[in-house]
Amino acid sequence: MKTLQSIKARTGEAFGAPLPASTEAQVDAAAEAAAATFGDWSASAGSVRAALLRGLASALEADREALVPLADEETALGPVRLNGELDRTAFQLRRFADMAERGDAFKFTDDPAVAGGPPVGHPAMVRVRVPLGPVAMFSASNFPFAFSVLGGDTASALAAGCPVVIKAHSGHLHLSNRVFGLIQQVLKAQGLPAGLIGMIQGGGSDVGVRLVQHPAIAAGAFTGSTRGGAALQAVANARPRPIPFYGELGSVNPVVALPGILAARGAELAATLAGSISLGCGQFCTSPGVIVLLKDAASDAFVTQLQSALAAQMPHAMLTPAMRIAFDAGVAHMIKAGVTTLLHEDGSAEAPRPFLAEVSAREFIAKTALHDEVFGPASLIVRAEHVAQALDVLRAVGGSLTVSLWGVETESAEARQLVRHATQIAGRVLFAGVPTGVAVTAAQQHGGPWPSSTQPMTTSVGDAAMDRFLRPVALQDAPAWLLHRQGQAC
Amino acid sequence: MKTLQSIKARTGEAFGAPLPASTEAQVDAAAEAAAATFGDWSASAGSVRAALLRGLASALEADREALVPLADEETALGPVRLNGELDRTAFQLRRFADMAERGDAFKFTDDPAVAGGPPVGHPAMVRVRVPLGPVAMFSASNFPFAFSVLGGDTASALAAGCPVVIKAHSGHLHLSNRVFGLIQQVLKAQGLPAGLIGMIQGGGSDVGVRLVQHPAIAAGAFTGSTRGGAALQAVANARPRPIPFYGELGSVNPVVALPGILAARGAELAATLAGSISLGCGQFCTSPGVIVLLKDAASDAFVTQLQSALAAQMPHAMLTPAMRIAFDAGVAHMIKAGVTTLLHEDGSAEAPRPFLAEVSAREFIAKTALHDEVFGPASLIVRAEHVAQALDVLRAVGGSLTVSLWGVETESAEARQLVRHATQIAGRVLFAGVPTGVAVTAAQQHGGPWPSSTQPMTTSVGDAAMDRFLRPVALQDAPAWLLHRQGQAC
Repeated sequence: MKTLQSIKARTGEAFGAPLPASTEAQVDAAAEAAAATFGDWSASAGSVRAALLRGLASALEADREALVPLADEETALGPVRLNGELDRTAFQLRRFADMAERGDAFKFTDDPAVAGGPPVGHPAMVRVRVPLGPVAMFSASNFPFAFSVLGGDTASALAAGCPVVIKAHSGHLHLSNRVFGLIQQVLKAQGLPAGLIGMIQGGGSDVGVRLVQHPAIAAGAFTGSTRGGAALQAVANARPRPIPFYGELGSVNPVVALPGILAARGAELAATLAGSISLGCGQFCTSPGVIVLLKDAASDAFVTQLQSALAAQMPHAMLTPAMRIAFDAGVAHMIKAGVTTLLHEDGSAEAPRPFLAEVSAREFIAKTALHDEVFGPASLIVRAEHVAQALDVLRAVGGSLTVSLWGVETESAEARQLVRHATQIAGRVLFAGVPTGVAVTAAQQHGGPWPSSTQPMTTSVGDAAMDRFLRPVALQDAPAWLLHRQGQAC
Repeated sequence: MKTLQSIKARTGEAFGAPLPASTEAQVDAAAEAAAATFGDWSASAGSVRAALLRGLASALEADREALVPLADEETALGPVRLNGELDRTAFQLRRFADMAERGDAFKFTDDPAVAGGPPVGHPAMVRVRVPLGPVAMFSASNFPFAFSVLGGDTASALAAGCPVVIKAHSGHLHLSNRVFGLIQQVLKAQGLPAGLIGMIQGGGSDVGVRLVQHPAIAAGAFTGSTRGGAALQAVANARPRPIPFYGELGSVNPVVALPGILAARGAELAATLAGSISLGCGQFCTSPGVIVLLKDAASDAFVTQLQSALAAQMPHAMLTPAMRIAFDAGVAHMIKAGVTTLLHEDGSAEAPRPFLAEVSAREFIAKTALHDEVFGPASLIVRAEHVAQALDVLRAVGGSLTVSLWGVETESAEARQLVRHATQIAGRVLFAGVPTGVAVTAAQQHGGPWPSSTQPMTTSVGDAAMDRFLRPVALQDAPAWLLHRQGQAC
């Protein structure tokens, strides 16, 4: 029997007893159990879905005193952050509960018959949406609550009427198991089948691949590395019947800061940016990895300010030993590519020190090795000759969850160009503040062109996340009994 | 220089002079010319887009006397059908013009700031949509107007703010060239750049592959065979930066007919169904390829009625010699798989005779060779022991553009099961009439699970077709000048 060993993130020591990895039979059983619940769950009322999501939120909150220390031991993210993340996760569950109760999943377009021949005349059409089926949900390491077992993917899939099979992240196994225990209690208390939310665990890619390949699985949702997500997407595409795979992958999140705002508020912005770069030890998908500056005195001063502010940051241990190793490798990769190092101190075996380097826009654009995300507290200053070259830098980045534009408060041709280029490569464009921190709200878009996500038209955060699991269907000349059921699943 | 030869569909003779295939340099030039127009077109007003689309519709109508005979020579679809299709194409262009003018592409979600810390508090967010960029559009053979040069993909992409590079279908080269000439006149008359709508042509897959691989191309739209679409989708996925690829592929379009309605209206339904199976020589993506019947006297009578009605049909020549050959191969494939032949007469070298066969549900489910679409006037009756087995047949089909359910006017557990299973595999579920004929309207959904489309959440017909080319972007703390521009591209 394969086993999995949890690790204390702060020390690298073993944490708790080894846990069994899921067998192939267990993976299949979880997918099949989810499929067995699909008919009833897809036909469930919004109030039933809302009650489950609210029950799960309350269960998380009620067990906070146990969950947060467990999460802290396995991730080193600290109790302040983890308590906040638990709040956010409960908030998110309740937000999707409200949407389910309001009937957002059951909204439809009524398109009455028009008499006469085509193209003007047409039969009566009603456009509804139907849940896809069981969703394979891959937890992320860096948000052990909000993008894990009961995170946004699970919440939005359940709200849409889809069962979920969770692949637990091996970076927080005991936390995942404890949350899964809560889930089972809530399902039982509400008279819902245990298979509606299943969980599997494994160390390598084998159990996840088997899950995505299972014929009963109708969609995948993933948050994690570009390599891991691309591999699973390829598996989803290679199925006899390919399925949608929603992967939220790597992102360098460029920040473009113009001289005017840096001259006025450089020190303050440097402090804010340094905090964002090192927040959570840089282990955010929205961590700002590229800072685009022009070549002028205000930008020069800002580089010095940022360097000092970043040197004062004390990043905590990384989530896993593998990530710590990958961070050093990523930094070495950048140095090898010829960047000028500005800040590069030795860290501990668990916690790295922030890394800052600089390169010309010309070199950045030419060296694709510099376009990859380095997961951790590293950032690269890219110096452009002028705004037109900054646009080329954005074009070279290609796809990103966010772009931040600092200093375009006034309309100008350059400001319009920056906005146009930023919106062309990113899912979210910020005009103030830093990209870390993703609001769970109606207008959020967390997903952009490749490599930031595999399905750039969709979001994994915010109200539209539910749309990923609802497929449109046109009902033509539907009988009266069926139309009476609209506003409710069939 | 490679050349392409158009063929008279009715006789197989050469039609007109050979035409040059696009060179690699010409493919690249078309993509680059489209990219050069993207900035301005993505920022164009709805009224400008509407004027172009209406100008194109009028140009098609004004040239009808030349276009229809040309199309008829190359496709054998006949003037009645082709005039109707031209009307539909103009209607569709004007419908997207109206949407562009109404500002549908510029609608946004305003999400004002909420004071306080997260998760409740959040910055001001505005969710807009931005055009993807130049679209590679692959014409279909079977709709030389409506799914070709100025078809729904081109119309919806232009309305969304995307330039288009058309890959002309080699089945109607002269028609494509003539329509492209009209486009160039309209662009010139409206002072728009020639590169906004480009066109390339080629006989094999080489020019299409090069187009999809071009870095300037931001999305693909395709209507055609499963094999061709899957190959191009693989190319889109294998790019250094994968792009969305909207392929509308093969579909068997099951019709489930229950005994009650067949007892009451069998003869009439058989005549309607026979017309649908042989309409356009069965060359419709919505042609009913599988007829699911139960084992009872009314169904037996219906089989005889359908057989007679189908024997009386006189399908015209197929679109191309290759399709004629593929039809015979598909029929032979079915026979080899062990179906019982009910109607199988020799056709001419150009026009096939309708083919009808029967198989048990058990055999159909077991033999995946029978689940593939046979493009042309062929249909397979699948006899199920009971409704539960009919559900298994739908599950075996897996993904289809349409399912038709005849005889579920009254609510029952079986009716609900049929609806649930039909909506799970199809993009459109009909409760009367036949699946051929796809209304261009608000609630239409022309796209379903694999293999019927590569992106089952999207439609290639109807108002939502435009959504394929608009990507959501959240603007966080956007400055006032930018918000004033909302309702219009930046």
